[in-house]
Amino acid sequence: MKTKKTQVAIIGAGPSGLLLSLLLHKQGIESVILERVTGEYVLGRIRAGVLEQGFAKLVREADVAHNMDTIGQVHDAVEFAIGDKRTKIELTELTGESVIVYGQVDITRDMMEAREQRGIEAYYEVSDVQPHDVKSDNPYITFTQNGEEFKLECDYIAGCDGFHGVSRQTIPLDVRTEYEKVYPFGWLGLMSDTPPINPELIYAKTERGFALASMRSDTRSRYYIQVPADEEIEDWSDERFWEEFKLRMPESARDNLITGPSIEKSIVPTRSFICEPLQYGNLFLVGDAGHIVPPTGAKGLNLAASDVSTLYKILTRVYKEGDKECIEQYSPIALRRIWHGVRFSWWLTDLLHNFGDDKDFYQQRMEGSELEFFLNSEAGRKVIAEQYVGLPFEDLK
Amino acid sequence: MKTKKTQVAIIGAGPSGLLLSLLLHKQGIESVILERVTGEYVLGRIRAGVLEQGFAKLVREADVAHNMDTIGQVHDAVEFAIGDKRTKIELTELTGESVIVYGQVDITRDMMEAREQRGIEAYYEVSDVQPHDVKSDNPYITFTQNGEEFKLECDYIAGCDGFHGVSRQTIPLDVRTEYEKVYPFGWLGLMSDTPPINPELIYAKTERGFALASMRSDTRSRYYIQVPADEEIEDWSDERFWEEFKLRMPESARDNLITGPSIEKSIVPTRSFICEPLQYGNLFLVGDAGHIVPPTGAKGLNLAASDVSTLYKILTRVYKEGDKECIEQYSPIALRRIWHGVRFSWWLTDLLHNFGDDKDFYQQRMEGSELEFFLNSEAGRKVIAEQYVGLPFEDLK
Repeated sequence: MKTKKTQVAIIGAGPSGLLLSLLLHKQGIESVILERVTGEYVLGRIRAGVLEQGFAKLVREADVAHNMDTIGQVHDAVEFAIGDKRTKIELTELTGESVIVYGQVDITRDMMEAREQRGIEAYYEVSDVQPHDVKSDNPYITFTQNGEEFKLECDYIAGCDGFHGVSRQTIPLDVRTEYEKVYPFGWLGLMSDTPPINPELIYAKTERGFALASMRSDTRSRYYIQVPADEEIEDWSDERFWEEFKLRMPESARDNLITGPSIEKSIVPTRSFICEPLQYGNLFLVGDAGHIVPPTGAKGLNLAASDVSTLYKILTRVYKEGDKECIEQYSPIALRRIWHGVRFSWWLTDLLHNFGDDKDFYQQRMEGSELEFFLNSEAGRKVIAEQYVGLPFEDLK
Repeated sequence: MKTKKTQVAIIGAGPSGLLLSLLLHKQGIESVILERVTGEYVLGRIRAGVLEQGFAKLVREADVAHNMDTIGQVHDAVEFAIGDKRTKIELTELTGESVIVYGQVDITRDMMEAREQRGIEAYYEVSDVQPHDVKSDNPYITFTQNGEEFKLECDYIAGCDGFHGVSRQTIPLDVRTEYEKVYPFGWLGLMSDTPPINPELIYAKTERGFALASMRSDTRSRYYIQVPADEEIEDWSDERFWEEFKLRMPESARDNLITGPSIEKSIVPTRSFICEPLQYGNLFLVGDAGHIVPPTGAKGLNLAASDVSTLYKILTRVYKEGDKECIEQYSPIALRRIWHGVRFSWWLTDLLHNFGDDKDFYQQRMEGSELEFFLNSEAGRKVIAEQYVGLPFEDLK
């Protein structure tokens, strides 16, 4: 077994792991990344595309923002449509902040390249990754690459390995509590190289179900429709998708829809999931490893970013000031913002989707009245806007 | 059988019926009020005490506002306490509007006296009240007083006779839909001639359950605590109430609590109830006859006032302009505001009360995060304030 040594071992080379490694590198803190699949495979995961300013600032702090700030679209507003009635929420006017439309794939690629250029060590296509002694002062990870066994000694382990990763499983069951809520529908997403139907995203509530018109650029659209959770992707030809999607857009937008062949099409399940605590000894759960939100409101990647921000502040203080006690702050600080994000994502999901017979007429009326109030009141729109652009990142005590 | 004739027959001499009769009187529209109990009995019902400006304007329009505007307290703020943490919501600063603390008993007494002075006819202690032919152009009501049978012919019937009244029952079951939600707790209320614990109302969420510190004047307090729905009032001595109430107040307020003998003590059940539609032929349901909200947020009487406002506008147009078609607007206009009130009352009830095991930890965390967000964000406080001072009354088309 080959033994290696680093300060921070990072499991997972997705956007969280990469961003953390780049930030630590800037502070002179050494890290090594372990990734189960190839870099190409990581880039094949089509995910989010709306970045909060908090995320963008971190990307700039990591000196990897050039493409994001050049190619990314700044969005000052977002639209909600209830049937044919459209309401624009002026994000910047209401909160002073905007969001950036820039694909998760693109930001990941930018960070992958920066990692390589800056000489941060990464092991791709590793297997049997297993953290050990995470409660001790000398934790380590064992893993295998190309049949060779490795031992990676470290001070801290950042578990950025997603919902199915080993990091969360390392926290004993009697220590962690998991909350999960699975919704009876999924999002069928289609990406195509066609100009977006609308300059702003449209979140659409219709009797046929929810739809989202999003985009990646002026020439690439990303559209979603709510489908039953057990829907088969094979049953959805591009034609069928376009027909259904168009019916869910407000009438005044329909004529702007330009269809084209899908370059990606998949069904995303929708769930809320939170693990408490997010820190166990010298192991930290970051992003999807610790929490999942339904995609409504685009909070998933952004909540991962606030985890990275908190962990970055903590590790910087640990190595610069020798204050090891501050690691206990990780879980409470991260979870406060996560619960907000979970709640906001749930609220939007709840109000915008069609739950069919799962909701009685009483609930439907209440929610109709709720949406109407929030969209008609400037304070209501500001409440939505503040959460959409993202709550501020909390500082360490 | 004695036959009488009027333009608008009003069933119920509570605040809704009285206010409607006074407003119609001002427009020269004749009405007759029928009431099952004595005036004294009506005044014995201790109820709400927080009036929205919309209500107050109607009272002024009816020329019966002198006492309300002289004795009533204008409140520019309301407080929320989560455990010991207090947040003041500056109603006037945020919305430009305030609320008036003036007891329902007092406003009812003012209106009773005005009705008598202005010679509006009323029959108290009537029984067997029964509306007839409400779908025809010649509806009438039969009733008995002191063993004598009466027939009251009229153009329209306003059902202001509360949740248990005959008016709603007059709408056939296949025409009306009723939505009801009963909560597993009640409010134990105590009134005492002691100075209020705080200049503003305090809505308090605690682990022991909800409490509300309200008042009627500088020398009369009205306090409530959440109790189980099946609680017996006999089990609550004044001492026990004071002890429990004090524990639910934020620590910084407790020393200001002055206790004294109760002058009224009762348990109010909490439910949401809405009947649709609120108009059937020439019969209109007003206030509690058509809808009930839990007391959190003090919307009950105020929703009745918006019903009265809408019906007043409609009957004025009918008699002044001869437009009979506008009566169809009653139900949709009234219900829009009612569903908002039902939702706001439910939201406050839901977030502030202790539901014990009825809510899992996931829900509790979500709601904790929701309250924190709304109380910490100015936009969030404004959303609460806008609803607390009351949404604007809608005009007829």
